[in-house]
Amino acid sequence: MAGASNPLHSWFLGPKGENEQLLRDLFDAALDSHLDWRRSYHPEDPSPIPPGRRRTADAVRQRSQLKTDFAGLLQALRGSVPFFHGRYNAHMLSEQTIASLSAYFAAMLYNPNNVSSEVAPVTTRLEVEVVEQLAEMIGYDPDRSWGHLSSGGTIANFEALWIARNILYHPVAARLASRKLDIDISVSLPDDTRACLGDLELWQLLNIRPSASLDLWEKLWLAAPGPVIENTLRAHSLATLGYQDYSRQLAAEFDDALPPAVVLAPGTSHYSWPKIVAALGVGANQLRFVPVNAHCRMDPDELWREVKTLAEQRVPIMACVSACGTTEEGAIDDLNAIVEVRARAEWELGVTFHIHSDACYGGYAASLTRAPTGRRHTAEEVRAACGSARWPTDQWLASISALENADSVSIDPHKLGYVPYPAGAFLIKDKRGRELVATDPPYLAMASSGDGDQPVIGRFIFEGSKPGASAAAVWLSHKTIPLNSDGHGRIIASTLKAARYLHAFLGASDFRPFRVLCLPEPDLNIVCFMLHHPSLTDLESLNALNETIYRELSPNEGMSAPYMITRTTLTSPAYDGAIGPLLEMLGAGGRSYLTQISRGLTVLRATVMNPFTVEGHPDHLLGLTDALREVAMSFLRSSSQAALSSQPAALS
Amino acid sequence: MAGASNPLHSWFLGPKGENEQLLRDLFDAALDSHLDWRRSYHPEDPSPIPPGRRRTADAVRQRSQLKTDFAGLLQALRGSVPFFHGRYNAHMLSEQTIASLSAYFAAMLYNPNNVSSEVAPVTTRLEVEVVEQLAEMIGYDPDRSWGHLSSGGTIANFEALWIARNILYHPVAARLASRKLDIDISVSLPDDTRACLGDLELWQLLNIRPSASLDLWEKLWLAAPGPVIENTLRAHSLATLGYQDYSRQLAAEFDDALPPAVVLAPGTSHYSWPKIVAALGVGANQLRFVPVNAHCRMDPDELWREVKTLAEQRVPIMACVSACGTTEEGAIDDLNAIVEVRARAEWELGVTFHIHSDACYGGYAASLTRAPTGRRHTAEEVRAACGSARWPTDQWLASISALENADSVSIDPHKLGYVPYPAGAFLIKDKRGRELVATDPPYLAMASSGDGDQPVIGRFIFEGSKPGASAAAVWLSHKTIPLNSDGHGRIIASTLKAARYLHAFLGASDFRPFRVLCLPEPDLNIVCFMLHHPSLTDLESLNALNETIYRELSPNEGMSAPYMITRTTLTSPAYDGAIGPLLEMLGAGGRSYLTQISRGLTVLRATVMNPFTVEGHPDHLLGLTDALREVAMSFLRSSSQAALSSQPAALS
Repeated sequence: MAGASNPLHSWFLGPKGENEQLLRDLFDAALDSHLDWRRSYHPEDPSPIPPGRRRTADAVRQRSQLKTDFAGLLQALRGSVPFFHGRYNAHMLSEQTIASLSAYFAAMLYNPNNVSSEVAPVTTRLEVEVVEQLAEMIGYDPDRSWGHLSSGGTIANFEALWIARNILYHPVAARLASRKLDIDISVSLPDDTRACLGDLELWQLLNIRPSASLDLWEKLWLAAPGPVIENTLRAHSLATLGYQDYSRQLAAEFDDALPPAVVLAPGTSHYSWPKIVAALGVGANQLRFVPVNAHCRMDPDELWREVKTLAEQRVPIMACVSACGTTEEGAIDDLNAIVEVRARAEWELGVTFHIHSDACYGGYAASLTRAPTGRRHTAEEVRAACGSARWPTDQWLASISALENADSVSIDPHKLGYVPYPAGAFLIKDKRGRELVATDPPYLAMASSGDGDQPVIGRFIFEGSKPGASAAAVWLSHKTIPLNSDGHGRIIASTLKAARYLHAFLGASDFRPFRVLCLPEPDLNIVCFMLHHPSLTDLESLNALNETIYRELSPNEGMSAPYMITRTTLTSPAYDGAIGPLLEMLGAGGRSYLTQISRGLTVLRATVMNPFTVEGHPDHLLGLTDALREVAMSFLRSSSQAALSSQPAALS
Repeated sequence: MAGASNPLHSWFLGPKGENEQLLRDLFDAALDSHLDWRRSYHPEDPSPIPPGRRRTADAVRQRSQLKTDFAGLLQALRGSVPFFHGRYNAHMLSEQTIASLSAYFAAMLYNPNNVSSEVAPVTTRLEVEVVEQLAEMIGYDPDRSWGHLSSGGTIANFEALWIARNILYHPVAARLASRKLDIDISVSLPDDTRACLGDLELWQLLNIRPSASLDLWEKLWLAAPGPVIENTLRAHSLATLGYQDYSRQLAAEFDDALPPAVVLAPGTSHYSWPKIVAALGVGANQLRFVPVNAHCRMDPDELWREVKTLAEQRVPIMACVSACGTTEEGAIDDLNAIVEVRARAEWELGVTFHIHSDACYGGYAASLTRAPTGRRHTAEEVRAACGSARWPTDQWLASISALENADSVSIDPHKLGYVPYPAGAFLIKDKRGRELVATDPPYLAMASSGDGDQPVIGRFIFEGSKPGASAAAVWLSHKTIPLNSDGHGRIIASTLKAARYLHAFLGASDFRPFRVLCLPEPDLNIVCFMLHHPSLTDLESLNALNETIYRELSPNEGMSAPYMITRTTLTSPAYDGAIGPLLEMLGAGGRSYLTQISRGLTVLRATVMNPFTVEGHPDHLLGLTDALREVAMSFLRSSSQAALSSQPAALS
């Protein structure tokens, strides 16, 4: 992919501002156009700032003061972290595309508010477009799905569980409402048989497929249109009653009120999930972590065991959260296998649940599977585009392709979409789900809830005001860098290749007297590894070594570190499936650490997101390994541990 | 305030780009500084984009395509709504300050993520500074309070209720934990007596002042520091158990589990509140609307009656939400009176609750009460600064000053702070409250939870990644336009004066054959009014007249409307206290509408936010009234209603 025609060379400003002129031209054009727009709006109106007043001594002094303060801010900003540079491989931050920066700037001058087309006629349409692009990329039907941009992944994940909860409990409200309105209605069960809604027990009502729950909603509306059904459904819904009265309703209505519904998630899941379940009132106890395997992916066998146990205990499952690109390791769960577990649960156990893919980090990887025509590439085509005979693996492709089977997906353009903050996205496969959380902001035009010329966004989202500039940024960025193997697929392929290169290089390098232990080859572009020295016989010293390396190779305001990475802690028991094989490489010595594992294992973490760390320019990855060796040696030298000085032989 | 030295003239770009050169200079300086920063970082590193490759035919074509696509975007953006202009007085959108635009731009180039100082060492400090400025403006002690910026008001309000719920239920967890750990501990009751925690019944545990609940938290930590108390408290908390098991715990532990706690809010409150109570699991039924008076302010007497009734029914109160600047009318609740109701409830009923002020819109009005030294102005000084002998009223000042007594406050810089989206802010008076929603156990992060050089923001907020550029924008804007009567106070005073001018002018103008009915003089800069014609004898026709005026005076992409306003619906019963006096002006005819009021009353709404609509430049307000008359006449003419044609006399 390197070579004279590499479009990566035009997509970003570049570490030395190589594309300065392009960015400058775009900024100038945006300001010119905006000023012309202002001046052409009722040019006959007089200015409220007469020219004479602009030149008074006070006005000159005020402008001069602002320039001075601004210069101070600019000076301070130079203490920022150089995400743009190949030396930075720490957190998930990098360059932004020129397209997104210039479009954000252009739209910000207009300050549209994408809560409603009434205050953002242009950028709400752009938001609808980009969300449809994301939906098509992952394989959702744009006509049946829906989505919107959010301030970030936490809110998108929150909305996923908020909607999932409403869908889960909807059949209960539907049953009570249909009884009250004397409507006979049937519903599809997980084994594809049909039953009369009124005949079901609570356990069955809480095990209706999301699409069947929404069919129920639609049928009730057709059977009794208008405010009657609306009000009756509302009167029995969790959203209206709140958990406390809802629990009482369940207890009064059903002999067995059942334990609270749980949320399943891999042990690797993002820290937003405990916040989300606590805030929603689901409760942190109901967030059940499914063990992960050596690849830090949710183990589908463990998931099956958990689902089976929950079924035996009659514990409903609100949702299973699967990760597509964990924050710490970039791990991609075997989503196809998770979908299969659900299918099996439906047939064998009569159990079903909402599947949400937290693809905040990894979602853009799906672009690699799309040809410019929009069709899915074959596995061979993807591998050819990646210039590899063996990567991506069939499992990787199956996981990514299975996103189309998730009931909802969150994807952050402000991560692997390389656009400025804030830009998260929430997608739901069956757009009827949004109706279960809709509100009517009274002062906004309610003429249509359609997705046509006047898209209504605010009715269905949790947030209110939000920057239309963000939609413009994502839109122009996708226009320039489409969601296929010629566009974002190139960036993904390039950074994933760089990460695998780093992984291989770390594994093959001579770090003596240290040894480098790596997690398995990464699913995305995050490489996790640790350094080990035989003198560090307790886990605390081992962690101290890696914490020291992290501190020495951290950004700080002086930016004196030659390279920047970060670290994470693999906690026990969430990560036991990954910690075991990692320490196993050390033999008996490794197993001894396991006895102290409750404090967690520090591993170093390199996020290789820089778009320029491509084949032919691996200098910074080589430099990073040199720097690692150097700070590790310096740790040894400065260490006053008796264990070290008593084992000089080990240092040779 | 007009005159040669009016700083307003330098703070904004201006409707004709009068300050173009200043904005352009700042943008250029930002880009220059950023590029210099990039180039001075490891200048010895080679460029990954060799100069030859930048000039290939492909690279030229790619840049040219981006410029073409960008030009298309710029053209589309010209269909945006001209918020910047004095002809736009619809939604709460206007100019942004030059300071905020330029600082947002400057910081966006660095793309800092204010979730953590590790990825935003500069802008997290700026965020801490601006939140302290907001805290000082409303009268919070910056050392005891805390806050942060959010994506907007909905999230800030959500966090307020999320924290309030944790504080409300904390004494229950504390009682169970202290019993388990065999710790004797006393607690302050609302009547200022003290009692042993173990002796309290549930009703008393749910009526502990927020500060006393947090004292309890702190005392338990001192009595049993470390993970033991943390884990024990967690094990009994709502956040951990979730509502369903928590309810079971209450039922098992206390004879009387009590009804669910309610949230009180004025009938005028923002539409985010029903979403928030539904999402949190509190339930929409538990959101109780307190009737409003003719000024659209929560009626303190009604609040007292509601609190008394709830006490008789043993219904706990999670929070009382008070509005400082309602979204629809800009009404400012008599917060001082609401605080007095709580004090009376504490003494007479043993009942207390968290008070949250939703000052998303009106919070910046507090700047008017501050002298440049930071001290509170006297009422006379404020009135002098406003050039009025009678405004603001003592009640207005008492309401604003009472913000310092609210337990939490939300203020949106992206509304009356005149900065670009996204910028909301959440403030809590007693910063210990944040620990109850923190993601990590405090003993892990205590060392670094300080607000000093390395502010930790992510631990205590609901969102994750968020733009540091937003903090930079608010910071430079406050630097240029400080939160006192010389800064934001000037803008507030000026737009409020303009709104009162419009209100007076509407009331005094000759609209015959129509009559204009106005809500009382506005508390902020939103004017609500309606046109009436005697031929419109049913409410539907009356609403149709005002809906038509709204449609004719709405922005559309052609921007053909000469002036832009919007409308809102006063719903019944929420707004009965305001609807009654409004229709009462019409005598018996007005009372007849009341029989059909369940469909709501449409009123027109003008948000007079434009900073240039100052004394001496009221042309657009005069123009607006002319346009109103014209579209109303055209409605009459084109109307085919028999009622109209049969009453030609009324049209003369």
